Amino acid sequence: MTEYKQIILDIADGVATLTLNRPEKMNAFTGTMMLEMQDAFDRTDADDSVKAVIVTGAGDRAFCAGADLTPEDGKHVFSSGEAVEDLSDPRVRDGGGLLTLRLYQSKKPIIGAINGAAVGVGVTMQLPMDIRLASTKARFGLVFARRGIVPEAASSWFLPRIVGLPQALEWCMTGRVFDAEEALRGGLVRSVHEPEDLLPAANALAREIADNTSSVSVAMTRAMLWHNPQYDHPMKAHRVDSRAIYTLSRGADAKEGVASFLEKRAPNYPARVSSDMPAFYPWWDEPGYE
Amino acid sequence: MTEYKQIILDIADGVATLTLNRPEKMNAFTGTMMLEMQDAFDRTDADDSVKAVIVTGAGDRAFCAGADLTPEDGKHVFSSGEAVEDLSDPRVRDGGGLLTLRLYQSKKPIIGAINGAAVGVGVTMQLPMDIRLASTKARFGLVFARRGIVPEAASSWFLPRIVGLPQALEWCMTGRVFDAEEALRGGLVRSVHEPEDLLPAANALAREIADNTSSVSVAMTRAMLWHNPQYDHPMKAHRVDSRAIYTLSRGADAKEGVASFLEKRAPNYPARVSSDMPAFYPWWDEPGYE
Amino acid sequence: MTEYKQIILDIADGVATLTLNRPEKMNAFTGTMMLEMQDAFDRTDADDSVKAVIVTGAGDRAFCAGADLTPEDGKHVFSSGEAVEDLSDPRVRDGGGLLTLRLYQSKKPIIGAINGAAVGVGVTMQLPMDIRLASTKARFGLVFARRGIVPEAASSWFLPRIVGLPQALEWCMTGRVFDAEEALRGGLVRSVHEPEDLLPAANALAREIADNTSSVSVAMTRAMLWHNPQYDHPMKAHRVDSRAIYTLSRGADAKEGVASFLEKRAPNYPARVSSDMPAFYPWWDEPGYE
Repeated sequence: MTEYKQIILDIADGVATLTLNRPEKMNAFTGTMMLEMQDAFDRTDADDSVKAVIVTGAGDRAFCAGADLTPEDGKHVFSSGEAVEDLSDPRVRDGGGLLTLRLYQSKKPIIGAINGAAVGVGVTMQLPMDIRLASTKARFGLVFARRGIVPEAASSWFLPRIVGLPQALEWCMTGRVFDAEEALRGGLVRSVHEPEDLLPAANALAREIADNTSSVSVAMTRAMLWHNPQYDHPMKAHRVDSRAIYTLSRGADAKEGVASFLEKRAPNYPARVSSDMPAFYPWWDEPGYE
Repeated sequence: MTEYKQIILDIADGVATLTLNRPEKMNAFTGTMMLEMQDAFDRTDADDSVKAVIVTGAGDRAFCAGADLTPEDGKHVFSSGEAVEDLSDPRVRDGGGLLTLRLYQSKKPIIGAINGAAVGVGVTMQLPMDIRLASTKARFGLVFARRGIVPEAASSWFLPRIVGLPQALEWCMTGRVFDAEEALRGGLVRSVHEPEDLLPAANALAREIADNTSSVSVAMTRAMLWHNPQYDHPMKAHRVDSRAIYTLSRGADAKEGVASFLEKRAPNYPARVSSDMPAFYPWWDEPGYE
Repeated sequence: MTEYKQIILDIADGVATLTLNRPEKMNAFTGTMMLEMQDAFDRTDADDSVKAVIVTGAGDRAFCAGADLTPEDGKHVFSSGEAVEDLSDPRVRDGGGLLTLRLYQSKKPIIGAINGAAVGVGVTMQLPMDIRLASTKARFGLVFARRGIVPEAASSWFLPRIVGLPQALEWCMTGRVFDAEEALRGGLVRSVHEPEDLLPAANALAREIADNTSSVSVAMTRAMLWHNPQYDHPMKAHRVDSRAIYTLSRGADAKEGVASFLEKRAPNYPARVSSDMPAFYPWWDEPGYE
């Protein structure tokens, strides 16, 4: 399938499934895993057959037990490497953030299927995903304050957007480990499932997207919903969606969308994310690390 | 009452009721309806007797079934008109956004009474309203990705503020149609009522506002809550509310508010929105389309 | 204990308890109380023994019944003093905002234990706290529109971040008084307790923080979660947390955090907020009143 060492990327029927695959290490996060995940999202973005991406963990114990703290695997991830003088040096960049910023840019919807323990970066990597489902076996911990560090992976930006500020504060300030039901009540996951029902539920959501929607519409929608709320006035979103409606409503997918709706049949959208995104996409400047 | 063709505006006892009135077309949205709704909000803003505005749909099937796609009615709304070169041309502007930006500026509180099917712009027009109630017969669909287009009417800005980002992503990426209970769980509406109880419940909320509050206070509160959260620091809200408290606490409504409270009687506020808003209102610059 | 007149500050076992102490006046807010609360937070920030701050009200009737409107106590708080020409004059500044902006800057987590009636500034002072718990006897009212004024204390910025925009709009536009259960459903408080269980529950949360976490981690986490969500892109949070992870992971608390975790023992973090915050803290500029 792929040559990856610490993940598996499986693409079938329009759905990519990315499995964190170090079950003997509870799928702990390493520099290798980070690079492989980045590469996998480059592939799913470039592959027009992919309509949605599911991320899960191998084995029945863990989704991802956090950064691997053992010396051989963890050295590029956490607390190591030579000292630098200047904190704007790119070598200072947090590995979890390198991953979450890549997920943030994904053109395909991302569904997290949280099958077991998720701690530290095992939680924060979920936040730029679009939908999160949990198994009853899932456990979560934003444990940074219990390790003498801080929430990473840009989670201070992402987490309040997902669960609201009060819940983000309580989970990060106590650093407690909590179960799937508390994650559900707090809004971190949208549903909880028996372990054997988790991947089927994730796949059903992926199918709901893949079978019914235009990929270009979904890629645009994803970018609009993640970017536009930061504007200080709705007029600025109106500028974007006016251009998008004007452009896309003249396109092939709008014709197919209306036709399939009126004919009460499954749609078959011709437009491709690789070639048919509106010319004004992306409409924002990407800031760099500095 | 009015000379409108596609809406009815009824003003009585301090409450304006705006009814989308094309029941034979499921109250589908047209350019005419947009212009009439804009005009109606100009009236409710200018009429000091109006303390709250209820928006609902005529008939028992639909609140608003989206943009009218039939040629005669839909031509100015969706996918038509001559092509323009420059996407900053005002003719590119989305009709739903022209409406929601007007609602965003309303000086009167807006209560949506969602009596039936609400699809596309039938949902997104609800988002700049302040309170939404649904009938058990209501259905909702942010179906844009199933039509080859994108969420419009500045909904990429409004929707995450109403239901949170994760719910906004799921509804917009799947494009699914969902019922009133799912809308309630997701935070799109604040309560669900039997069909015959919907307008009474909306009116009770309107009365709660009309009978107890200062119109100038409510207009200022509305502007503050919609604008000030975008500031990057609470000091900037403090600048606004310090000026407002200083100014209004010296005014006639504050005197009446405290007096009626201490005397345990209904208030009778003298200040008028048309003439007595603080001199520094509005305290922000309105961006234009560009 | 302290020389305060209208509050009590009690520090024991790493937890500071600040009690609003005018029970005969339902703990109504005055200029004196504001100054004393500001001073108390200066103390808790400077005292490295303090790991968390609980704020509650004396007596069994009220948390804080709002601004004291009686002439002798209220004169510096509400609607009085000489008139000024220029609204950027610092004498215009709202007293509630002077308090909430100070709480916003706290380096220690703040837990509100809302024991009774909380009206006006009695509610808005809770919003920059990190966690709010209520007694079944608590009542809440954002009653400003029923007094001819507006929500103060920068609550137009804070409240939507705590309860979401729709709930903020409904509570502020109706000005209704609501009970603890409505506060819980609306997200204003995270749990409701029998009166005798309220302070024990608040203390249990304070202990969960005090016994398990690094104070420097918690102070950084607090600042990151309150500040970073305002950035327009997660890259800007990534800049902050990369610096923080890089710096703190080389520090003594990270060593102790990992060691105590691996040794399955209680941690004993050596770093102090007074001397060991990262050199780049604070990473933002504080705007002034103008």
